[in-house]
Amino acid sequence: MDNHLFSSSSSVSKWPFHKVLIANRGEIAVRIIRTCRILGLQTVAVYSTADKDALHVKLADQAICIGPANANSSYLNISAIITAAKLTGAEAVHPGYGFLSESADFAQACEQNHLKLIGASSNVISLLGDKEQSRLTMKQAGLPVVRGSQHVITDVDDALNQAREIGYPLMLKASAGGGGKGMRIINSANEMKAKFTTAQEEAIASFDSNEMYLEQYLPNPRHIEVQIIADQYGNVLALGERDCTIQAHHQKVIEEAPALVVPTSTRTEMLRQTEKAVANLHYEGAGTIEFLYNRDGSYYFMEMNTRIQVEHPITELTTGTDLVELQLRVAAGAKLSKHHEVPHGFALECRVNALTPGKITALHLPGGQGVRVDTALYQGYTVPGNYDGMIAKIIVYGDCRQRVLQQMQEAIDETVIGGIKTNLELLIQILREPDFQRLKTNVNWLDDLERSK
Amino acid sequence: MDNHLFSSSSSVSKWPFHKVLIANRGEIAVRIIRTCRILGLQTVAVYSTADKDALHVKLADQAICIGPANANSSYLNISAIITAAKLTGAEAVHPGYGFLSESADFAQACEQNHLKLIGASSNVISLLGDKEQSRLTMKQAGLPVVRGSQHVITDVDDALNQAREIGYPLMLKASAGGGGKGMRIINSANEMKAKFTTAQEEAIASFDSNEMYLEQYLPNPRHIEVQIIADQYGNVLALGERDCTIQAHHQKVIEEAPALVVPTSTRTEMLRQTEKAVANLHYEGAGTIEFLYNRDGSYYFMEMNTRIQVEHPITELTTGTDLVELQLRVAAGAKLSKHHEVPHGFALECRVNALTPGKITALHLPGGQGVRVDTALYQGYTVPGNYDGMIAKIIVYGDCRQRVLQQMQEAIDETVIGGIKTNLELLIQILREPDFQRLKTNVNWLDDLERSK
Repeated sequence: MDNHLFSSSSSVSKWPFHKVLIANRGEIAVRIIRTCRILGLQTVAVYSTADKDALHVKLADQAICIGPANANSSYLNISAIITAAKLTGAEAVHPGYGFLSESADFAQACEQNHLKLIGASSNVISLLGDKEQSRLTMKQAGLPVVRGSQHVITDVDDALNQAREIGYPLMLKASAGGGGKGMRIINSANEMKAKFTTAQEEAIASFDSNEMYLEQYLPNPRHIEVQIIADQYGNVLALGERDCTIQAHHQKVIEEAPALVVPTSTRTEMLRQTEKAVANLHYEGAGTIEFLYNRDGSYYFMEMNTRIQVEHPITELTTGTDLVELQLRVAAGAKLSKHHEVPHGFALECRVNALTPGKITALHLPGGQGVRVDTALYQGYTVPGNYDGMIAKIIVYGDCRQRVLQQMQEAIDETVIGGIKTNLELLIQILREPDFQRLKTNVNWLDDLERSK
Repeated sequence: MDNHLFSSSSSVSKWPFHKVLIANRGEIAVRIIRTCRILGLQTVAVYSTADKDALHVKLADQAICIGPANANSSYLNISAIITAAKLTGAEAVHPGYGFLSESADFAQACEQNHLKLIGASSNVISLLGDKEQSRLTMKQAGLPVVRGSQHVITDVDDALNQAREIGYPLMLKASAGGGGKGMRIINSANEMKAKFTTAQEEAIASFDSNEMYLEQYLPNPRHIEVQIIADQYGNVLALGERDCTIQAHHQKVIEEAPALVVPTSTRTEMLRQTEKAVANLHYEGAGTIEFLYNRDGSYYFMEMNTRIQVEHPITELTTGTDLVELQLRVAAGAKLSKHHEVPHGFALECRVNALTPGKITALHLPGGQGVRVDTALYQGYTVPGNYDGMIAKIIVYGDCRQRVLQQMQEAIDETVIGGIKTNLELLIQILREPDFQRLKTNVNWLDDLERSK
């Protein structure tokens, strides 16, 4: 599907690996298995005892039990997974998202055992996993990063001086901080004078340290992220951006592509800056660069995820790509062409969460033109209570946002998942909110909405 | 989804009808209901007693029983359907395909009862339903039609003269004919001399008539068809062509779009000729013009279907349209723009047929990027034995035919339909045939293949 993204001279004619172990479960394991099969790659599923009847186990060519239900003993058990790969003769490992997908230790274990990890190297995962280091790296590579104080602050005069340079509003934080202790939102010099001392005293009491720092505060930003794919030769392609602003307790709930709030010139700048920054990293594979985006069009690098994202399908639909295929091909040494994708149409994803475990007694999923459902559900399957509750992604693709929103409401309305509690009703409520429909939202919007009810 | 196809000044802002009765069942009824709902139109399902638990009944806003299982008494019962529309206050009727979709009588009954039929007028259905008349009309409108004798033939010398003008091979037929009586394939003048008299004697014996005629014979053509949509103002858009060559006993089994065997220049000519011919007809709605296509690039009009086709999804995927929405919008008076669609990508449809009726005891349908399944199946549903056995359409869309063929094999391989016999295995066999993969097929290919086994 994605051959147009590769330079013709170097598409993969022979795979350097023939059997891929999928170190994951649920819909993403199913989704990865499907692409492997299309490409003629053998698949190995791993599963915990709680997942012996799971769909990914049924669809893979081979399946191997790696431990008990508890994820620490199975899906997070590096040695069990490496052993499973060795036992089955798998030559590559796809980590999916979550679990070990951003574990530098796991990447290193794969490297040491000559298993090709479909993703970034352990060094790069390490670097980008350290939030401070990754911000510094990205700042040096030219991405805008939230402004902050240049050195440790211990008195209010220094705080006022530095605040003048950074600009209000800003966040006063304890250097040794955590859990909100010593943390204050500061809107003006007067507020700084009024709040600095009590905040510092709180810091001393909590962390035995009087060191404070300041950071630019973004009151109600949107979450905008850029999907990239990078090959082993330093070529990086940005495959457009996504708007993942609708979050409940920092968990994304609804995602859309493209991000219609971002003006074209800003989008172009964002994508080109991202490609340039990632090219600096010797990065390989798919990745996502997350930004906080303000109403005034400014944006700031937040973090980079070194894996496939839950919300990758909306990028697949707007760019006509198969991101798992892209991951596999660059891992196999294919070279990306310089071609820039021009996204077309509009895609929306709703995450369907199980609020209770239990047996699926009735199942009807929506379908038809423009509808895609990624799931590992089947009627008679028992959703275990041991893992993340995200059990299905309903994705709608079409010409324009308004029609897609309408179609998504109908798609969710048609969905029947009997036997367990789900968030389908909440999804419908969000879709019907005028603020959501008009893109008048921010990352705190859904939590505020829930609180106000 | 299709607003770009309409001239901006005349998109439908207010529907002249608000409630649509769907005079059909199965996957097409479900598919029509879905688009109605997205557009904010109320829906009325009709059903026979055999279909009381059918999915289209569950999804519609209202459902009304129109008779017993026997289609003649229900889905073909014009007065029962008109009464159902009157009773429920439906203002428009969508006939789907099959059943009454090409009945001039039904169209006339709708007209007389002031129900807007989503489709052509009774006059146009009448005209195009008569094969001889429709060929004559299309010939006059500039479409190539199979060459034939200009007048009745009663002796071999006249036959030889006319054969010289038409060219061999040709088909000798009894004017009053049917059932193959008096019919001969004639490859040369010598064969004509040898076969004319016995064929004529057969005609006299069977039909008491010595009148014969000659028609150009196409030995092993492909079936290529053009999808059109026409508005009430004489604007006609061709939405690309489909290759429906894979047929079993004249029933399409696998369809693809675009038709890769047709050179670009021929395709352009075919589409423009079709648009021009249909514009002559005062035709309204969706329609399909079917051609026989020869290896030498020549093609001949066969017939026009005045309805949505089973295989319409592959055109939707390659043109980014919703054909049922287009039907509804032109029925509501929207004006098409002159814009020509440029199809992109490649789409393949496999028809899944139930070979036995029965209860669906297990159901797993394929999904993921590029896969669409149109079906009315659900686990626990009982497929009745009273109707056409086509129970699902698996459609795959992607960049290129080779990958789509591979993905279709995996999609079918993944499909589980427990409790009944289906043609899934036959579909896989066809997909794996080298002749199919290389497009070395014709309309007789599958029947020949089956016979040779």
